This record gives sequence, structure tokens and C-alpha cells, in this order.
Amino acid sequence: MSSSSTDVDLAAFLKDARRRVDAALDRYLPAGDDPSADCPPRLAEAMRHSLLGGGKRLRPILALMAAEAVGADPALALPAACALEMLHTYSLIHDDLPAMDDDDLRRGRPTCHRAFDEATAILAGDALQALAFEVVARDTQPAAAAARCCLELAEAAGPLGMVGGQMADLLAEGRTDATAPALEAIHRRKTGALLRASLRMGAIAAGADDRQLDALDRYGRGVGLAFQIVDDLLDVQGDEAKLGKRVGKDSGLGKWTYPALLGVDGSRRRAREVADDAVLALEPLGDRGARLRALALNLLERDR
Amino acid sequence: MSSSSTDVDLAAFLKDARRRVDAALDRYLPAGDDPSADCPPRLAEAMRHSLLGGGKRLRPILALMAAEAVGADPALALPAACALEMLHTYSLIHDDLPAMDDDDLRRGRPTCHRAFDEATAILAGDALQALAFEVVARDTQPAAAAARCCLELAEAAGPLGMVGGQMADLLAEGRTDATAPALEAIHRRKTGALLRASLRMGAIAAGADDRQLDALDRYGRGVGLAFQIVDDLLDVQGDEAKLGKRVGKDSGLGKWTYPALLGVDGSRRRAREVADDAVLALEPLGDRGARLRALALNLLERDR
Repeated sequence: MSSSSTDVDLAAFLKDARRRVDAALDRYLPAGDDPSADCPPRLAEAMRHSLLGGGKRLRPILALMAAEAVGADPALALPAACALEMLHTYSLIHDDLPAMDDDDLRRGRPTCHRAFDEATAILAGDALQALAFEVVARDTQPAAAAARCCLELAEAAGPLGMVGGQMADLLAEGRTDATAPALEAIHRRKTGALLRASLRMGAIAAGADDRQLDALDRYGRGVGLAFQIVDDLLDVQGDEAKLGKRVGKDSGLGKWTYPALLGVDGSRRRAREVADDAVLALEPLGDRGARLRALALNLLERDR
Repeated sequence: MSSSSTDVDLAAFLKDARRRVDAALDRYLPAGDDPSADCPPRLAEAMRHSLLGGGKRLRPILALMAAEAVGADPALALPAACALEMLHTYSLIHDDLPAMDDDDLRRGRPTCHRAFDEATAILAGDALQALAFEVVARDTQPAAAAARCCLELAEAAGPLGMVGGQMADLLAEGRTDATAPALEAIHRRKTGALLRASLRMGAIAAGADDRQLDALDRYGRGVGLAFQIVDDLLDVQGDEAKLGKRVGKDSGLGKWTYPALLGVDGSRRRAREVADDAVLALEPLGDRGARLRALALNLLERDR
């Protein structure tokens, strides 16, 4: 497998996967222009603004690739993929609120509370969380896989996962006793839990066995951490126009970051280390893990 | 069946059910005093403050009674019952936020954002929504019932249900074109959808057949509306100390209410009418519907 043919495969897969995910998300969302509908148009528009406003679709892509990596049709994981993006987007809407990170720009557009108002943004986030579970519970087959995917999503999203991590992140702001293990403990919950769940849900929806699930779980942990370290590096060195959000905001808020703790070079080394471990974890999947392997290396080099 | 023996039965059932639900909620919540836990203690404390701070536990009670009414052990519906209370409590936390109804008092105690802060309250609500799905997905048996209960809960909570109703309620504030059907359309979503889901989830967790589920569904619609009309009446005529929240706030906010639309007597008549329809719906359940029948009549006379 030459590196250039993998790059081409990966780029084509990503483009096609994003197109399919975007189309499915559009179908799952309530219409914004139906005044007789049960969903008030303003709420539907706010959900659409944030969910369909671009984004890398990393979590859906991980879910689809996990299904492929266990030899199944990625379409089996499409409901889970959409649910993961809804869950992620709701967390961005709430994190951007004035009471939290108070951000004006997200994915190159005004944040939800800036485009609408605070109450609408809170409710759009709440609605997207509920819709995520609706989609998984209804459209994942069989029912046992649906219940298991709901459980994975809920655990990753809840007080011991994403929300707990966001709370820990807020509480750490301005504290001067940062350490690398403490920062990793925040990221394991704040972003890591949902990235790991992306792999697990994709695998479960595709009927993975325990050995495959374990391999994808370990890959998910490594890739999740590598992704976050690169995120921190981009906040220091990235291009605001490409990222579609403010840079330098983390250090401005007194947030703990990898570059502040390990330096830029040390952070790059650590990202490489955990990405290598992720790639190693794919071994039991054989050739079917090729796309996930390429993605892990690609994430190290991303500029957005 | 004499009226007084039913009253005694009902009071004893309610007391016992509340005790069991409160104990289960306490077990499901993360501990507030474990600094090494994945859930930050401040987040756990905020969730505990709001979820364990009293409350009628109406939704759990409806779920447990629905299980009983189809001839099953109410314990089968206990996870669903707890999830419904978590979902309801998260909605109260978010509705009380400054950007929404801006309330200081709830269940006789400071609202979550007053006892903690806005960011913590937003996250405590978010965490309770996720935990609700976690509990249903993991502890409802068999898996098919778990997936179905997750779906019922998600639909009731989402943009076409509770969140859509809250948005519609906010948008209606101050508008002068209120009508009884438009108000009912708001309440059907804002409070009705979750009350109806309480009956449905309890029945599904207990293995109800379609005829039983239909009966409980219709009962849920009627009781949900009756409950809301009485709520509006209490906001006009109730005792703040008994209610544990501010009275007169709805008209103060320019909200649409039944007494404003139908008058106090007209509202009482309408509540009686829909409660009678709820009781009628129980006929196919025979004697097993006795407790739900008593509850419907009891709700008409509540003072908190």
C-alpha cells in the first residue's frame, strides 16, 4: 500500500462520507419553514444553523470507518454517525454560550446564541441531544444494538464523560497546578469519550465481535488524544480563517493546554506517540484497518 | 370500592413509590464527595441539589402505576421512572435559567443557577438528560423494551415534544392572539408529551400489549392536560409556601394561561372534562386501572 494511493482513497472516502452524513442529517432535522409543524420554525432554524454549518464530521467518519473495518456495510452505522454529530454539535452550542466560553464564531459562522439568542441556543442544544438518542434508538438494527448504542452514547455524553470533562475544564481555568496527567484526564472525558464512542458505536451497529471492539476501542483512545493535542497546537499556531473559530482563545481564558505544559515540540512528540499506539491497536483487523490507519496519520497533519 | 378506601390506598402507594424512586435516584446519581471520581464533585452536587430536592415525582408514579395497571411488577418500570424524573428535572433547571424564565425558587429551594452558577446549571441539566438515557438503555429489560423506551423518551423530550413546547411557550409570551386550542398545542408538547411518555414507558417496560398501551396513552393525554390546567390555576390561586415556587409569575411574564383564557370556573370545568375522559380511557384495564383512576381525580384537587 503506497502512501499516495492511501491518500487518494482517504480523500475520496472522506468526501463521500461527509456528503452522505450531511444528507442524512438534513433529513433527520425538522423542517425550518413549516409554521404548522410541531417544531417551532425558529428552533428548527437554530438546529439547522449549527448542525449543517460545516464541520469536519470526524465522529461520523470514525463510526462509518469502524463499521467498514469489521467487514460490514458502513450504512449500518449511519444513524449512529448522525447521532454522534448531533451530540457533538449540541455540546459546541452550549460550550459557546456566554456563561461558558462566550464565543462569537464557530465553523466560520456566528455561534448559535449570536445568530439567534441565548434561550434559543440553549433549547437548540437540548433538542439536538434528544434527537441524537431518537435517531439511534429508532434506526439502529437490531433492537439489541440500538439499546447498546444508546448506552454507549449516553455514557460518553454524561457526567462521567463529556459533560464531566467540560465541567473539569471550566474548573481548571486559571489554576496554576496543571500537569500533563491532569490535562489528559480532562480531555479523556471532554473530547476523548465521544471520539471513543464513535468507534464503539460504529462497531456495535455493524455487529462487531469482542476482539474487534477492543481493537477499535484502543484505537479510539489514541486517536482521541492525538486529535486533542493537535487541536491545542492549532489554537497556538493555526490559521483563524481555516479553522473557522478564534485562535489563541484557550491561553487567553487561562485554560490548560498541551503546548503550555509540554512545549510545541513536546506536544508534537506526544501526539505522534499516541497516534502510533492507535495504529498499533488496529493490527487484529488486518487490511480492513487501512483506512483508519491513514486517518490517524492524516489527523496529525491537519490544519483545520 | 369506597372512595375513602381508595384514598387510603392511593396515599400509601404514593408514599411508598416516592420513597423507592428517591432511593433509586440517589443510587443512580454520581457521588458528590469523591474528588477522585470522573464526575467533578461540583457537577455531582448540582445534579443532586436539583434532582433530590423534593418534587411530586408525578412522572415516575405514572410509570409505576402503568406497569401495575397491565398486571406486572412496578419494579420493572423503575429505571424508566427514574429516567423520566431526570429528564423532567433537567428541563426545570434549564427553564429556570436567566435567559429563559429567570427563576430563583424551585421546589422550595434556590434554583440550580442560584445555588451554583449558570455554567454549572447548564451542565447539570445536560448531564441529567444524558443520564436519563443511560439508565433506561442499561436497566430496562429486555433490550427491545430498552430501545423502545429510549425512543419514547427521546421523542417526548425533543424538538417535536418538550423542547419544542418550551420554545413555543417563549415565543407566545406577550402575544395577544391567544386561543384555547393554541394554548393546548403548547401544553401538549411542553408538559403533555413527557406525561404521556410516562404512561407509555411504564407500560412498555412491563410488557403491555397494544390494547393496554392505547388505553394508557389516551389516559396520559387527558391527565397531562388536566394537570397543566390545574397548574395554571395554582399559579393564580395557589399558596407559594406549599408550591415551593413563585406564584403569579405566568401572568407577570405575559404567558398564556387557562384562567386568562377561560376564566377560573371555565378552567375548572375544562380540567374536569379532560380528567373524566382520562378515567373513561381506563375501561379496558378493568379493576387494575383503579389506582390510576383515583390519581386522576386526586390531581384535580391538589394544592401543590
